[in-house]
Amino acid sequence: MIGDGIPYPDIARIRSELTSWRMWFGLWRELALEYEREAEQALVLGCPISAGELYWHASLSWHYAQFLWFEFREERESGQKSKVEMYRKAAPLLSPSAERVEVPCEAFPIPGYLRLPVNESVAPCVVLIGGLESTKEESYGFENMCLRRGIATFTFDGPGQGEYFFQRPMVADFERYTSAVIDYLQNRPEIDRNRIGVLGRSLGGYYAVRSAALDDRLKACVAFGALYDLSFFRDLEPLTQEGFRYATGIPDSTEAEVALRRYVNLAGVAKQLRAPLYVLHGGKDRLIPPTQAALLDRNVTHAPKTIVIEPEGDHCCHNLHSRVRPKMADWLAIQLKASGYRRQT
Amino acid sequence: MIGDGIPYPDIARIRSELTSWRMWFGLWRELALEYEREAEQALVLGCPISAGELYWHASLSWHYAQFLWFEFREERESGQKSKVEMYRKAAPLLSPSAERVEVPCEAFPIPGYLRLPVNESVAPCVVLIGGLESTKEESYGFENMCLRRGIATFTFDGPGQGEYFFQRPMVADFERYTSAVIDYLQNRPEIDRNRIGVLGRSLGGYYAVRSAALDDRLKACVAFGALYDLSFFRDLEPLTQEGFRYATGIPDSTEAEVALRRYVNLAGVAKQLRAPLYVLHGGKDRLIPPTQAALLDRNVTHAPKTIVIEPEGDHCCHNLHSRVRPKMADWLAIQLKASGYRRQT
Repeated sequence: MIGDGIPYPDIARIRSELTSWRMWFGLWRELALEYEREAEQALVLGCPISAGELYWHASLSWHYAQFLWFEFREERESGQKSKVEMYRKAAPLLSPSAERVEVPCEAFPIPGYLRLPVNESVAPCVVLIGGLESTKEESYGFENMCLRRGIATFTFDGPGQGEYFFQRPMVADFERYTSAVIDYLQNRPEIDRNRIGVLGRSLGGYYAVRSAALDDRLKACVAFGALYDLSFFRDLEPLTQEGFRYATGIPDSTEAEVALRRYVNLAGVAKQLRAPLYVLHGGKDRLIPPTQAALLDRNVTHAPKTIVIEPEGDHCCHNLHSRVRPKMADWLAIQLKASGYRRQT
Repeated sequence: MIGDGIPYPDIARIRSELTSWRMWFGLWRELALEYEREAEQALVLGCPISAGELYWHASLSWHYAQFLWFEFREERESGQKSKVEMYRKAAPLLSPSAERVEVPCEAFPIPGYLRLPVNESVAPCVVLIGGLESTKEESYGFENMCLRRGIATFTFDGPGQGEYFFQRPMVADFERYTSAVIDYLQNRPEIDRNRIGVLGRSLGGYYAVRSAALDDRLKACVAFGALYDLSFFRDLEPLTQEGFRYATGIPDSTEAEVALRRYVNLAGVAKQLRAPLYVLHGGKDRLIPPTQAALLDRNVTHAPKTIVIEPEGDHCCHNLHSRVRPKMADWLAIQLKASGYRRQT
């Protein structure tokens, strides 16, 4: 949470007020509503930068309110929607601002946000893909790391994720949605069409490798948490299993599991990857075992690889966020030749 | 610590390794040396932004190593010096960069750092003053808040503080040093000489009010933690008393205490303040009691005032840092008419 931007004072407050797990949603909602009120006040006072950050905090608070909150479907969905709404209000006020984009794609446009670095006329761009329970509103901190390094960022919700889940649950061919995003980005004059990369987090790490293997317009790929397949599905914690099933939108849990094992599988795909790959995985990841990183490593046979297993890291090395995240941003800056990083590698 | 930029993972690590208080200095030193090595590696890899942040983390780790570490004078001083050295290396790599300045002042130039906001040809500036155990290297986070709002920042060590302590311990007329800084800033073409303000933290809150009361070139004043006098000196925690005595450089503790009561006193000074004043104080501050904020309020009789007492706030409201700090930056932006904040107030 801290790595993604929840201030420690908020965590301390929720922890002191939480006396039963049922209060979780309500306490975060209360915080989100406070942030929204403060954001509105900041606008009235003529303080746009504070307003943007406060709306972003409201969005993030809603995110944690609804996080894994499957049991109470209405609260879950209202939380998702409020999160989206608050980030929409934050977007134009952020610096640099986030432009809401609806990428054309079959029946339902893909919702995303584009942010451009200052002082760059044509910039490289990294496409950011969230995981099972993470969405386009959450990568603000990592976006800022990329933007400071001269890389534009595009973050979106694909099938099964965030607001797009209501249009389209999880699919087997996520790469088609990434490709639609690349089509879009290649037509933006502010983006260098030959310097587009991708980073995916957790389940998004799977999507990122899949997308880069199947669309060679992606010139660099980061798996911020490796995932090769769901052969270990039954070993997942019950709530994570539930999260995966939820994302499929398939009511029958056996059918959902069958679908999931098919949706998440890099067999035959990994070997098609040609773009440089960076894999970060926690040696103590209890959600996705490090063996998944080894499987990915073994099956990516035709791409330059940097495999980083942090012995003390938990899931996605979130417990080491301040150490591991800038290194991924640096690697992307070097691979995508951001200005200031154009050396031989 | 978190409010000033220590990453939570570092705190968790120190906490898990610390089994006796004597290990404090060594554990932080180890962390600082790790950061220094990583910064050097980042430079070799051509990653200047990471290098700057890593040197800054090294500096901050040294700061907490030597914090209140009076009992071991040599470690204390080596920590101070390493902190200064690491920040010096960070300075040109920060974005925007920090320019090391030696402000002319009698025998010993005052060491400080100037940072200028991007995209402003002439900017307002806030002078940042640290407290008893805080120095010019620590305000990076707050500086960034000001810089994002279009305000330049100048932070320095005065008598009794940081590296200047070795030249000059605490004095009764700190305002002369602030005035020397203003002389300097008024000759910088990037700074608007009529839009200079001051913010001081903890003991620096005392220095800020004193400086603004006695130099009317300061157009706005923030006491980030109020302090009117040391009438309550004997009620301070022993380690804080020790900190105050240490800063005077006077070996005899009775003499030091007499000097301190004379050095820290706004009687007759507070009423001379004309610049708008913003006071932030924690209702639960156990270091400096809220009665000090009330005393300050009562004695500032000729200046517009905004007095914020956060009922749940601890010393300087550090436990609420994410909420209270942006508001001070906003107030400064409005008072100093930063671009984007030029409305009637």
